[in-house]
Amino acid sequence: MPEFFNVLPPDDARDLLFRHLTAVLPSETISTQEANGRVTGAAVTAPHALPQFRRSTMDGYAVRAADTFGASESLPAFLQVVGEVPMGQAANVALSVGQAAVVHTGGMIPDSADAVVQIEQTQTVSGVPLSVNGIQFPFEIEVLKSVAVGQNVLQVGEDVRLGAEILPAGHILRPQDLGGLLALGIMAVEVVRRPRVGILATGDEVVSPEEPTAPGQIRDINSYTVAGLVEQAGGVPVLGGIISDDFAALETAAADLLAETDMLVMSAGSSVSVRDMTVQVIDGLGQPGVLLHGVATRPGKPTIVGVVNGKPVLGLPGNPVSAMVQFDMFGVPAIYHLQGVKKMPRRGLVWAQLSQNIASESGREDYVPARLEDSADGLRAIPVFGKSNLIYTLVNADGLIRVPLNKGGLLAGEWVEVRLF
Amino acid sequence: MPEFFNVLPPDDARDLLFRHLTAVLPSETISTQEANGRVTGAAVTAPHALPQFRRSTMDGYAVRAADTFGASESLPAFLQVVGEVPMGQAANVALSVGQAAVVHTGGMIPDSADAVVQIEQTQTVSGVPLSVNGIQFPFEIEVLKSVAVGQNVLQVGEDVRLGAEILPAGHILRPQDLGGLLALGIMAVEVVRRPRVGILATGDEVVSPEEPTAPGQIRDINSYTVAGLVEQAGGVPVLGGIISDDFAALETAAADLLAETDMLVMSAGSSVSVRDMTVQVIDGLGQPGVLLHGVATRPGKPTIVGVVNGKPVLGLPGNPVSAMVQFDMFGVPAIYHLQGVKKMPRRGLVWAQLSQNIASESGREDYVPARLEDSADGLRAIPVFGKSNLIYTLVNADGLIRVPLNKGGLLAGEWVEVRLF
Repeated sequence: MPEFFNVLPPDDARDLLFRHLTAVLPSETISTQEANGRVTGAAVTAPHALPQFRRSTMDGYAVRAADTFGASESLPAFLQVVGEVPMGQAANVALSVGQAAVVHTGGMIPDSADAVVQIEQTQTVSGVPLSVNGIQFPFEIEVLKSVAVGQNVLQVGEDVRLGAEILPAGHILRPQDLGGLLALGIMAVEVVRRPRVGILATGDEVVSPEEPTAPGQIRDINSYTVAGLVEQAGGVPVLGGIISDDFAALETAAADLLAETDMLVMSAGSSVSVRDMTVQVIDGLGQPGVLLHGVATRPGKPTIVGVVNGKPVLGLPGNPVSAMVQFDMFGVPAIYHLQGVKKMPRRGLVWAQLSQNIASESGREDYVPARLEDSADGLRAIPVFGKSNLIYTLVNADGLIRVPLNKGGLLAGEWVEVRLF
Repeated sequence: MPEFFNVLPPDDARDLLFRHLTAVLPSETISTQEANGRVTGAAVTAPHALPQFRRSTMDGYAVRAADTFGASESLPAFLQVVGEVPMGQAANVALSVGQAAVVHTGGMIPDSADAVVQIEQTQTVSGVPLSVNGIQFPFEIEVLKSVAVGQNVLQVGEDVRLGAEILPAGHILRPQDLGGLLALGIMAVEVVRRPRVGILATGDEVVSPEEPTAPGQIRDINSYTVAGLVEQAGGVPVLGGIISDDFAALETAAADLLAETDMLVMSAGSSVSVRDMTVQVIDGLGQPGVLLHGVATRPGKPTIVGVVNGKPVLGLPGNPVSAMVQFDMFGVPAIYHLQGVKKMPRRGLVWAQLSQNIASESGREDYVPARLEDSADGLRAIPVFGKSNLIYTLVNADGLIRVPLNKGGLLAGEWVEVRLF
């Protein structure tokens, strides 16, 4: 059995991979409304200030703050209301000393006003009812509490200043980011092209899921679980089909698929000789080839991490659990990296109390599938034990418990971090 | 100013909404490969066992375990290797007493064998090298350690038994679930139809993002942030455009859009009179109408939650931060509920140390946008303070800090939960 010549802890392995991936994919310009989940290819700056005009944050009266100074319930300030600022229109009311204008939440503040008195802090003297339309002006109000200059007013540029960098390059766009862009009238945005990820399944025993299986044959799973993770990370999966355990066939298929994609994933047959073949194929594709063969994790130790002409190339173990955990560990970050993502999305974690002991080995990072259950004492994590060839250990799990590199195991009753799928 | 007639804590408000949503949307059958993120409309059972044949979990030799009993390095068992099981083929090797067959990881175990000896626990006596092809049979090996019956063998049905329920109804399909289905040759799956969610923006001041803005006007944000959240929850957003603050216009637009969708969201103008109009419109659409007006949260207190003819109808505050936080709180769970989801997806949370005090009021659940930063002492949560009309407080945040209902605030240095976006 060959030695793993270069087994690294997962963080170091990922750093090694990233050091060899220097280029970000080219950008394209797309409609902002369709950019959810895409990554900015360049920083975006504000074409104008937001808000563009001073807005009221309350329903009430736009006033000159000085006119309210000293006002109280026992000694109210009297103001003459001379008009209303309709929603969506310029504030064309000019206020002289002792005057006010009706203003609604979000409405524009007249130039001559510098604060807003909340309607709850006023009383109508002449009994004119407040309604959106049909108010008779002028009428008089009592202001029961003074306001400071700027009170209840959103200033021009308080949300974003003209020219400010609103999003950096390498930012994954979320619904609120689209909202922020559209608020400024930015209808198109420069995003990095979605990485195309070629996926090959290998193994004489592997058949396509729609085919009937003969004794000794199993259906391809990894192409589809990996494709799902590729899409979730913003990539485009390109399925290359199933290749038999034949060096020349695999070499040709890998070279062809890599030529038309930005990244290649081979879910290798699981026997030693086939794993060796994957290493040779990757080394033959170009420089630098295989970076490491073996990661200090379980499941998934025999993972192969390589780079060919600036494109990541991964050889995953054939076992579906190993393949998925390892692709999540290296493939998903690589897809983000190709898009120039500066700050990887944070893992959703929950804390839960472990239901039973988990054995591990120091010097190895273990990932144990776990089911989560609410209980009277809080959230409980129930490990779903099973060999790494059993896909249903993952189907029955809500996430993975990480047993850190320096720990020999975890004890029942301990609070542990569960990384959600 | 009208009283909020029924202000509930968010959990109670959600329960109230769910009690009025009894029907799950109809199902449709789609390709398993395209079902990522969809929700099962019926339980799925296994059409056959998985694996369908006994498989080796190691590279080595299929043996009769009894032939190895008592074997050790000093007293090895000698076995005659009479053949090989090729990958992907039936195991057509019959073993007599004292015989073994070469088997690879994932390969089929011959009927007459009941265990596998790892290759590392053997030595080849006659010096025949092991390779995938070209092995000369028979040759002899020494077994250096005994194996138990079943050792290194995956049994038929060990992953899934024939007829077992592999997925319940109401399950959100993930990449590994697709893998589990395809492993069983299940190429199509019954899923609940994606809920169509109608979205109306209202307000005389609101214009479409592609239009230039005049003084007093702002661009529509909420339609797009809500649409993004709808898609993330598996729904189909149906944008109904911008309606002016006119009762008849809003009534007609709401009725028309609700008739062709499964749920309606109105992002209301933010002034009191317009909020009242939304309440009246919802009550006029059908039974039971508005369930509650006001949720004990900040931002977003004036949220309106209703149900009309079994369809959820929400009135969101006009402020973009309130609208997004409230839609996440009621709209997203409602979309899952319409799909019959039994177990809502768990929120990704991280723990972080608060950088400064946050004031709140007991009896109200506050959500404060926060940026996350790694520091030497661990993760830090830096609140992004800002009025709830500032969309960039959400753009600049990684998640929300929840200040629980019964707390008057949080202190700098406290460890707090941050719900990731």
